[in-house]
Amino acid sequence: MFYPDDSFALHTDLYQINMIYTYWQAGIDKKPVVFEAYFRDMPFNNGYVIFAGLAHIVQYLDDLHFSNSDIAYLQSLNLYHEDFLIYLKKWQLTASLRAPYEGEVMFDHEPLLQVEGPLIDAQLLETALLNIINFQTLIATKASRVVTVANGDPLMEFGTRRAQEFDAALWGTRAAYIGGFNATSNVRAGKLFNIPVSGTHAHALVQAYQNDYTAFKTYANSHHDVVFLVDTFDTLKSGVPAAIKVAQEFGDKINFQGIRIDSGNMVSLSIKIRQMLDKSGFSNAKIYASNDLDEYVISDLKARGAKIDVWGVGTKLITSFDQPALGAVYKMVSIDGKNTIKLSDDTEKISIPGKKQIWRTKFGDVLSFATEAGSGKPILHDVFNKGQKVYHLPTIQEIQTYAKNSLLKLPDRFKRLDHPDHYDVTLSQQLADAKATAIADVRLKIKEN
Amino acid sequence: MFYPDDSFALHTDLYQINMIYTYWQAGIDKKPVVFEAYFRDMPFNNGYVIFAGLAHIVQYLDDLHFSNSDIAYLQSLNLYHEDFLIYLKKWQLTASLRAPYEGEVMFDHEPLLQVEGPLIDAQLLETALLNIINFQTLIATKASRVVTVANGDPLMEFGTRRAQEFDAALWGTRAAYIGGFNATSNVRAGKLFNIPVSGTHAHALVQAYQNDYTAFKTYANSHHDVVFLVDTFDTLKSGVPAAIKVAQEFGDKINFQGIRIDSGNMVSLSIKIRQMLDKSGFSNAKIYASNDLDEYVISDLKARGAKIDVWGVGTKLITSFDQPALGAVYKMVSIDGKNTIKLSDDTEKISIPGKKQIWRTKFGDVLSFATEAGSGKPILHDVFNKGQKVYHLPTIQEIQTYAKNSLLKLPDRFKRLDHPDHYDVTLSQQLADAKATAIADVRLKIKEN
Repeated sequence: MFYPDDSFALHTDLYQINMIYTYWQAGIDKKPVVFEAYFRDMPFNNGYVIFAGLAHIVQYLDDLHFSNSDIAYLQSLNLYHEDFLIYLKKWQLTASLRAPYEGEVMFDHEPLLQVEGPLIDAQLLETALLNIINFQTLIATKASRVVTVANGDPLMEFGTRRAQEFDAALWGTRAAYIGGFNATSNVRAGKLFNIPVSGTHAHALVQAYQNDYTAFKTYANSHHDVVFLVDTFDTLKSGVPAAIKVAQEFGDKINFQGIRIDSGNMVSLSIKIRQMLDKSGFSNAKIYASNDLDEYVISDLKARGAKIDVWGVGTKLITSFDQPALGAVYKMVSIDGKNTIKLSDDTEKISIPGKKQIWRTKFGDVLSFATEAGSGKPILHDVFNKGQKVYHLPTIQEIQTYAKNSLLKLPDRFKRLDHPDHYDVTLSQQLADAKATAIADVRLKIKEN
Repeated sequence: MFYPDDSFALHTDLYQINMIYTYWQAGIDKKPVVFEAYFRDMPFNNGYVIFAGLAHIVQYLDDLHFSNSDIAYLQSLNLYHEDFLIYLKKWQLTASLRAPYEGEVMFDHEPLLQVEGPLIDAQLLETALLNIINFQTLIATKASRVVTVANGDPLMEFGTRRAQEFDAALWGTRAAYIGGFNATSNVRAGKLFNIPVSGTHAHALVQAYQNDYTAFKTYANSHHDVVFLVDTFDTLKSGVPAAIKVAQEFGDKINFQGIRIDSGNMVSLSIKIRQMLDKSGFSNAKIYASNDLDEYVISDLKARGAKIDVWGVGTKLITSFDQPALGAVYKMVSIDGKNTIKLSDDTEKISIPGKKQIWRTKFGDVLSFATEAGSGKPILHDVFNKGQKVYHLPTIQEIQTYAKNSLLKLPDRFKRLDHPDHYDVTLSQQLADAKATAIADVRLKIKEN
């Protein structure tokens, strides 16, 4: 089904190729343009997003080209002239790409990506770039909300089995780590991204022995650090007593980290388990919980006095269950050095013209033309310069720290889970004027028609 | 970041490897087991699901093995004995896998996958298998709901930019096609799966010319089949008049298929556009619509008299927006020929013991032991037999037809969008008895502790 020369050049919408064909025939395919990606509405009504996806973008753009099987497929569609296919086969990226650092705190209407170069490049990349940042930024942001609520408790990402296919599990758990999670259950993500991996055993182990005690004992024979899952048959009557018995029998031979519960009433169960562990002298043993957790459930469990120390978060995070898509769009903001705009019948869909820079100041962010002198910290940085990668990917730990520090600088009123204040993103005078002029120009043209 | 010997053997949860390590040390890693995957609650409260994911499962299992870099990574964790790593390096799939045909109509509590073989195989595969079928079955089912509402209108899958990363876009649009969609915008999906591709142009083309008329004319110069997107500046005052003008000027030189709208009031706009097209002699031209469509919006637009002929569905389908995860689980149902069960503190989480077959009859489905003689149509078929692929993947068109025919056989009362009847899935007498016995056995054991 897959080809030996598998490539991602065709991981795009057909209309991109169709437009490129028109540009090529009309001779405007090399016109210099700037496109920017941004979203209009904050996901989860959150006060910020955590930008993520740059590592995958760099991987996607590195050596991007149309393979022989790509060209053969396009030929089979009978839509394009032979010369166009030869032209595509020779195509190489020559555009520049700018973006915030991964982990940067960002806001609505700010450019998350800026592509500058020939029209063909900007058009070809749109779909894949949006596909990457829409998902990863969403998950990093969702993770950040969970981190806020967990208030220092360790957080494990456990969602692979419920993720929307392989890539979502892999890149999603990386985004969760950027957002502040402590570990992943996905071993491949641990291998590829150097994220700490975590996990002990599932119900199947207990089923294999049809008995909690034997299962835990066998597990303890082969592992030093152990967390026993206690709800396979009966948490309080069987699981927890068996865990305690094994911990007592093995003593210093194992590191009894605690127990995990995955069902039932988490408040009353965790309180009783805490008592049982404490009474048996295991006051250092932690209680791990999983089972459809998200920021709201964790917040509620904490408020109701649940004695849970470590949280395993799966489905609700990895799919961003309550809002599974970030609606970032990608619009042409200039062509041939001239500002462009998209009007639309929905006023809120009007784009902001011009190639921009974002300046972070004490009083909020300012969007200006990239050519203007700004004050504060510039947010967009070169990732590719005229087709050449100029970005050195930080380690995942550095990115997580960057995100943490970015967030620390943001006042608390923007970090509330519900009804945070809306962060000010204003336009420079030049940009505001240019937007007004562009709208007026287009409206005038329409009248003249 | 990725390795030359990249593999998916580690696309699993760490606890699977940890359990396998325990099984290996305890000498039970080769014990014959059966695991089954099933879900407990119908997604969207729908009356059925459309099973999908088999093509990816076959790809994943084909030549699955631990690569050198996988082993090196596991070694770096300092959790496992050297001999265990050698053992993993030599591991080959020897399990059997059974599943419904792709496109089969399925119901809650029915095995969607059955893995039979050594404990190590069953455990290692769990995470990836669930990751695949949870997502693809969800999307095929969501697509099927949209198909029901569209009532014969052509449907295009347009969601790549909002999908949860690359794989979700790719396999999701394949699942949408299985569910009855007519085409995809994702060119790579068209190439790999032979799905018809569809798309014309975006707002960017009009922005490139800053003028609807010039943009449409240029597009018509390079394409025979054309659909013009008319809402870049002003749908009724600029976009539609320009589209009509170009269609009139080009006449038979192009195939003017219609126009597409992506914003605004779809009901009033489409009615006015229909009048404009009809008055200009283009009564065959279609009106395409996109913009956050799903089965509810399409149903509502139709009820309110919108004159839309072709629907482009993006975000809401490809992310399964209103329920982005199917909660299928994977449980051990037998070990060493003995039935096993998982009890849990939530009664609804109790599993059904034993290796099963599903029989489709006139009166609903019957789950029986695989060893029992059943009547009706058996649903589970061999995909892998003792590690060897025995399944011949049908063409995507055959799978779509199979799904369509499966659904045709299902009475309408199970196909209502809201509050469908619940399809009967009953247990054979032997299976019901075995479940009761297994529950009683476990409860007795717990008491004895």
